[in-house]
Parts: sequence; structure tokens; C-alpha cells
Amino acid sequence: MNIVVQKYGGSSVADVEKIGRVADRVARTREAGKRVVVVVSAMGDTTDELLSLAKQVCENPARRELDMLLTAGERISMALLSMALNARGVPAVSFTGSQSGIITTDTHSNARIVEVRPFRVQEELDRGKVVIVAGYQGVSLSKEVTTLGRGGSDTTAVALAAALGAEACEIYSDVEGVYTADPRLVRDARRLAELSYEEMQELAEAGAKVLHAQAVEFAKEKGIAIHARSTFGGSGETKVQPLKGNEGLRIAGVTSEKGLALLCASPGSGAALAELLEHLDGRSSFGKQLLFDREPAGSASLVLSRENLHDFDAVVAELSARFGGGVRIRPGLGAVSAIGAGINASFANVRKVQAVLASMEAEPLQLSTSSFRISVLLEEHHVDEAVRRLHAELVP
Amino acid sequence: MNIVVQKYGGSSVADVEKIGRVADRVARTREAGKRVVVVVSAMGDTTDELLSLAKQVCENPARRELDMLLTAGERISMALLSMALNARGVPAVSFTGSQSGIITTDTHSNARIVEVRPFRVQEELDRGKVVIVAGYQGVSLSKEVTTLGRGGSDTTAVALAAALGAEACEIYSDVEGVYTADPRLVRDARRLAELSYEEMQELAEAGAKVLHAQAVEFAKEKGIAIHARSTFGGSGETKVQPLKGNEGLRIAGVTSEKGLALLCASPGSGAALAELLEHLDGRSSFGKQLLFDREPAGSASLVLSRENLHDFDAVVAELSARFGGGVRIRPGLGAVSAIGAGINASFANVRKVQAVLASMEAEPLQLSTSSFRISVLLEEHHVDEAVRRLHAELVP
Repeated sequence: MNIVVQKYGGSSVADVEKIGRVADRVARTREAGKRVVVVVSAMGDTTDELLSLAKQVCENPARRELDMLLTAGERISMALLSMALNARGVPAVSFTGSQSGIITTDTHSNARIVEVRPFRVQEELDRGKVVIVAGYQGVSLSKEVTTLGRGGSDTTAVALAAALGAEACEIYSDVEGVYTADPRLVRDARRLAELSYEEMQELAEAGAKVLHAQAVEFAKEKGIAIHARSTFGGSGETKVQPLKGNEGLRIAGVTSEKGLALLCASPGSGAALAELLEHLDGRSSFGKQLLFDREPAGSASLVLSRENLHDFDAVVAELSARFGGGVRIRPGLGAVSAIGAGINASFANVRKVQAVLASMEAEPLQLSTSSFRISVLLEEHHVDEAVRRLHAELVP
Repeated sequence: MNIVVQKYGGSSVADVEKIGRVADRVARTREAGKRVVVVVSAMGDTTDELLSLAKQVCENPARRELDMLLTAGERISMALLSMALNARGVPAVSFTGSQSGIITTDTHSNARIVEVRPFRVQEELDRGKVVIVAGYQGVSLSKEVTTLGRGGSDTTAVALAAALGAEACEIYSDVEGVYTADPRLVRDARRLAELSYEEMQELAEAGAKVLHAQAVEFAKEKGIAIHARSTFGGSGETKVQPLKGNEGLRIAGVTSEKGLALLCASPGSGAALAELLEHLDGRSSFGKQLLFDREPAGSASLVLSRENLHDFDAVVAELSARFGGGVRIRPGLGAVSAIGAGINASFANVRKVQAVLASMEAEPLQLSTSSFRISVLLEEHHVDEAVRRLHAELVP
């Protein structure tokens, strides 16, 4: 019998009524003859509420203890969903990330899955049970509880789907798949029926919240097709799968993110830059994008995000204290990205982007490209308007 | 350096401000040169709130899933206390019951500790850290998460104290030690400076909330002295330790509990009774007291408590369905007990109890005695008054 992995995000299990509706959907999938593994996030705003408690007791809490704290969130939602299924006569059992065999690196608050050993999950599936797994969390080889960073439940789902040889991995959220832009920002944004891993990865890394970037990376590596669907909405979906090569020069969409800061360093030498990066690594403060320009002044710039960084302000304060005037930080920024296979086959699209920004009098602080992406760094207040105008200009 | 185990109950860690005060106290103990292990319960009403969520999704949730759910509670409080200590410059690390090596039976919602393997706790103490341990929870040999029943954090503390060879086990709550009766009920109740394990055990089993009965049993077995103290109150305490033999005929106190039901069965034969007990065992519905009288009618009676029984109503309904008229259940009862070494050296005290109840026109439904205790089962509305009158009559 074929295995289906379904992942439900925080808004899908935000209260007991919604948990009941998720249970109904899981029960239907099981009645349709599938073996079902369900990955859940914490209920609604639980994670943010726990974070706020942490901030109240400690300005700069240790990441290891934050992970202990936050993993309570999925424990609650998974047990409740399991009970809701039992109440519907569906045998179910819940497992933590650790019990499900989600083995990660030991980087607290931003761990990566290194291996999945789903023995207990498989065993309970064989017994005819629906297995509920806590998303977002795992355990390191030294038996420390870890979390995968925001959106990590997607990664849990894909990694489990791969390890179990599932026929499908379905990611449910409050939107019906992936759109050419955020429909709340851009009125005529369209849903994409399908998307390549590469495009989805770029979209996710550039701020699209539908799917987590590491999840897409995993899916690509293991050849798992992801179906992005709405929990309570219509039956539409976006299928994320291998690049077919016939995408041509299409532009898949425009996405954005806020809460960024630009760090400019003039360390003068590669050695000083290495020290700066070592310092950031020690705080697990991964930059989104690093540029180093040896000439003329040996300057480097790095984009930092509040995302995945629970103590952004502390890191910024420390950097100033440590590197003084050699490091300048400019917060209050955002990024807008256009994504599509072949988007940079010529400079035509980059030129269109520049023209659009100029018409808005929005000075880009940085512009960068990759095979699938054009990104610009802007002041935060320009971001929404830039998304609307770029979508109108670029997306057919 | 000597190890001290301190346990803080739910009311001691009810909010971030109280967690901060607990952190201050722990920090002081460490400054006084002790190695400190702290056992915490869930914050305030967390456990009840989680239970209420469970009831909303499932009328009769599986105990295994309830344990998964409820153990989220201590995970939150332990991580927050650890952070609060770090914020005070005190190195601390938190561990779940499982990580602390609290191995239990697999009886969900009412497990017993069978062994403690505190390797990781010891290791972190050796590194100079304060170790915070989640109370009330453990792990079975089949790696299932279990809970120890209400008040089980006390047991965690004593079991850890024994396994670590601690010099003291301090149990902090919102009352300053053990009183001759509940001070909220009886105005002139006095704090007992010391108490034998046997007396404390009887008090706990008869409803005193200060210490958990299994905790006292453990302490007795391992020879660990327990200090019952107030978290935020004065410096008074009650020391619970071995019986010295010079307690004489004193009566240590009067205690009570409510929410009881009397189950009367006329199964007619030992085999039918065995079936009834098997049924109850299958639901982990431990009776508090079983009486079986072969003559004349082969009747049996059993006192059930809502305590430790999350689905009392379901169990009662099932029993009626299964055994019909052969089983009668009378809810709305309570028990009052007087406890003291030598309390039953003669029948003098039993006669006093009977006289007091007669003066109140409170008919005892059952009366039973042990070496350290006289207990009567009454209608719930008589309980408080009976405590007051018995305290006045019996406690010197």
C-alpha cells in the first residue's frame, strides 16, 4: 500500500476546530487506501508566544535552551491531532522528531537534517496506524534536541517522504499553491500549475513562504515531487518537480522579503574578513548573500535577515562592539526578486528591473543575479510597490 | 562539592516574574558552594489547559497521547528557568525526563520510576552547570514518553537525589512545610517541624498535597531526608525523615480529599470480582481502597478518585455498561483522615472520630484503619467541617 506524507502548517492546526478538520482530511486519505504520515507544525502563534516568554526571562537566550522550549509547540499539536483521529475511529500515534529518527547537525535553531531513520514510523504504519510526526525538530547524534529553523516542518515532510519511499509529499498551507506573486500584494497574480525545483528554491530563498528552501533542495536530491495545496480552500495545487527543459524564458514569479540589514565591512584584508565571518558563524548568523571585493578597498558586504536569527539585535550590537567603525550596519531593508528559468539568458530582464526601479525613484542598494534569479536590495518601504510594478512588467 | 536537589512546583514557576525569583534562589544556593539540580513542574495551570484542549478534540483521549501532550508543559518551564539562570550569569542546561535517565514502567499517565540513570546530569554538574530537569515525566524501556501522575515531580526530585547521592532534597511549594491540617480550613493548624516517612506517606495518600506519596516512599527506601519549604514565604520547613521511635502516641495531623466515588459490586464470586478488577486495571483505574467481603453476599467495594484518572466519567459509564446492576457507583464523596504514629494503639481515637461524626450527623460510609491512620468516607459536603472538628478534638 502506498505511503503519502502530508504536512500541515501552524495556521492549519491553529485551534481545536481546525485540528478536527485536518483530522477529517487525513481520515479521508486513509479511507482512499493510503498509508498516511502527517507532519505538523506548532499551533498558530505558539512559537512566537514561546519566544516572547523567552525574551522576558533572558535578553539573549542560549539557542540550545530555545530549541528545548520551542519543540514543546509541535508536541502539543501532534498529540492533539492524534487524539482527534482516535476520536474519529482512526488509529493514530504521535512521535517527536527524535522518536521519528530525524537526525540533524548540532547547530541549534538552524540545524540541517543529515539522516532519517524512520524505523518506528515504518513499524506503526505496518500496524495500520496513521503516524503523526512533530515537524521542525530533530535530534543530533549527541542526543541534543534541535530545530530546523522557520519553515523546517516542510523539510521534515520531504525528508520523511524520501526515507519512506512515499508516492507523494503534500504540503498544506493557507494558500492554494505557489503564485506568480503574493496575491495579497498583486491582484492579478496567478497560481503556477507546476514549477521546477530550481525555480521553487530561488523563490523560497528570496522570501516566498509557501515552501522552505531546504525542503525543496531535499526533494530535488531525492526526486520527490511536492504538491503544494490549501488546507481549507479549493482543490488547486502547484506541483514542484524536476526541470523539464521546456520552461523557455518564462518568468515564474516575483517575490520579496523584509526585515533585512546590510552589513558593510572594510576589514582591509582577507584575514580580517575571515575573522568577521568566524564571529558570525559562531553566532549561527548566516548571511543571505556575501560579496567581497578585493579592489580597491577590500570591502565586503553581507545581507543579514531577522529570519532564523532569534537574537538579531544582540548580534548587531556585538559586531559593532567587536569591529567598531570597520563594520557598518544598515537595517530597515528588503529585497525583491524575479525568478524564472532562463531569466538571465540576456540582460533584457535586468534592464527592465532597473528601469522600473528608476521610475519609482527607488535606489537599489545591491543588485545580483543567478541563473534563475534577479534580486535587488531596497529600503523596506519600497518593497511592496516594487513587487507590484515588477510583476506587471515582467510576468506575462 | 555536595549536590542539592531542589524541586519547584507549578505555582512557583507560574509566570516569568516568579521564574526569575526561583532563578535568584537557585543562584544563591550555587553561590553557597552547592552543586544544584532543579526539578520543575509545568507553569501554573498549563497542565489543566492542555487537558482541556485534549477534551475538546477527543472525549476519551488515549493515555499515551495525553502523556505526549502534557510533557510539553515541563519542557517550557525548564527551558525558561535555564534561560533565566543564564541571564544571571549562571551556566545552566535543561534536560527532559528521558534525557535525565528517568526510566519508568510503561503505564501511561501513572507510571512509576523503576530506575534512574543520571549520566548526563552528572556530566553537566561536573562541568559546573546547574542542571534543570523536567519533573513528572520519564521514558519507558520501549522509549515511550510517560508521566508519573499528579505530583510526580516530587518523585522525580527524590529519585534523582537518591541516584546522585545528594546531601538534601528540597521540595518548594506555596506552603511552608506540612501542617497539622490545611491552614485554609483550620485556623489554628500548626506547622510540623519534623515528620516520619510513614506519617507523611499516609498524609499524602489521604489527600495532603504538600508531598507526593511515591516520592516519600522513594525517600524512605533510599534514606533521603526531604525538606518541605515555601518558595516565596518564610524560612520555616518540615523535615521528613526516618521514624525515631519516640513519636509516642502523637497525632500528626488531619487531612482530607474530595472527588471520590464508592464502587459497590455484588459479583457473587471471586471470579466475577477478578473480571471487574481486570477491567479497571486495563483502564489504569487504580482504586484507593479495596474491601472484599466473601460473606454473606460476596460483595466488594472500591474507592475511586478523579485524581490520576483523566477520564473518570468514561470509566464509570463503561463499568455500568459492562456490569449493569451488579455494580453501583456513588459519586460526590470525600474522605477525612487522621494520621499519627501509634494512632491505633488502642481504639480510643477511632471512638473519638465516631463521636465527632455522630455530633455532626455525618454518617460514615466506610471507616478503615492502618498503623498510622484512621480514615472515614463521607458525603463531600461534610468534609471541611469534619476536618475542623477532628483537628480540634484529636490534635494536641
